[in-house]
Amino acid sequence: MARQNRAVQTRQTILLAAAAVFDEHGYGAATIQEILTRAGVTKGALYFHFASKEELALSIMAAQLDSDPLPSQPTRMQELVDLGLVFARRLQREPLVRASVQLAMDPWSEGLDRSGPFQAWIGLIEDLLNTAKDRGELLSHVDPRQTAEMLAGAFSGIQELSHVLTDREDLTHRIVVLLRHVLPSITLPAVLVTLDVSEGRLERLTGG
Amino acid sequence: MARQNRAVQTRQTILLAAAAVFDEHGYGAATIQEILTRAGVTKGALYFHFASKEELALSIMAAQLDSDPLPSQPTRMQELVDLGLVFARRLQREPLVRASVQLAMDPWSEGLDRSGPFQAWIGLIEDLLNTAKDRGELLSHVDPRQTAEMLAGAFSGIQELSHVLTDREDLTHRIVVLLRHVLPSITLPAVLVTLDVSEGRLERLTGG
Repeated sequence: MARQNRAVQTRQTILLAAAAVFDEHGYGAATIQEILTRAGVTKGALYFHFASKEELALSIMAAQLDSDPLPSQPTRMQELVDLGLVFARRLQREPLVRASVQLAMDPWSEGLDRSGPFQAWIGLIEDLLNTAKDRGELLSHVDPRQTAEMLAGAFSGIQELSHVLTDREDLTHRIVVLLRHVLPSITLPAVLVTLDVSEGRLERLTGG
Repeated sequence: MARQNRAVQTRQTILLAAAAVFDEHGYGAATIQEILTRAGVTKGALYFHFASKEELALSIMAAQLDSDPLPSQPTRMQELVDLGLVFARRLQREPLVRASVQLAMDPWSEGLDRSGPFQAWIGLIEDLLNTAKDRGELLSHVDPRQTAEMLAGAFSGIQELSHVLTDREDLTHRIVVLLRHVLPSITLPAVLVTLDVSEGRLERLTGG
């Protein structure tokens, strides 16, 4: 048990070190040697957990989807709002999530399949929208797949704009603005009026 | 006159070569030497036009905003739609515009101020929305600056998603989807009903 915990910790240490090195140099220029130095682990320890630089990058990209499940809400549309706001906060606070998104957004991550995180987010949002539609929360013209792809793309660009302009300080506000522009076009008004789409939502949701 | 034309041509040759090199290696790894080789010009010619690698990158980023003015339309909101669709097509067709956007989106363009193109697009959209608002085309709650920032961010992410998933083949479709989700929340219904927000719009607009 203690052994397993140590392995989990080592894996996390390596991921965080790799995230920092990718963050600094980009995927292409990063070297395994620098990740080893930063993590303070042996080459054997690293290769026990990750077969290659690519596998490290893919594991970091996958980390943006690792998250505790959010409290369930009266409507799926509120859960969609909460998903966006919580991810915005994770981007502001968690270096691993930031590195994860930077890798996925880097047009020069040569040889790296960057479609994984996009596809995963699209799938997650599409599932929520499909359930919302089945429950009658959406307007009848909505195509959940199309809306999910639009939201995933829009979110990724808005977080990058917020990164460039304010180092993501205003990200929560910008996601609220996105949702307030999009939700009225897809949500039944009687559901829309119940939603909490505001910057204060996160405190009310998690008390933090 | 012939001399001036040659200078303009040389400048353009250097810009396209730099765009290709940045596209291949990223801003950080690109070298002036490789740009010289690709452009087939002397170092003197390059430095006559551009003082540094940074100035080359900034000039490429500025190129995304160089465009012939679009035909004026009965509403500013139609002009906003046209602006988005034309830019989508330029991204699909023009290598310089693609390189320009890649530079602006690259989280590892160290030392490069990437806020310029974002700010320029935000300003352009904000001006259009302000005029639209003055002319009564928008719902009264709309904050043109906020909507402009949201649209610029969303567009940039959606073009990147389209880049990752389909090498931008479906970009026009995705921009139509974005506009169809956002315009109903900001546009007066009597104006909304007059808008052509469809993939066929570009052919009707420019015949090409």
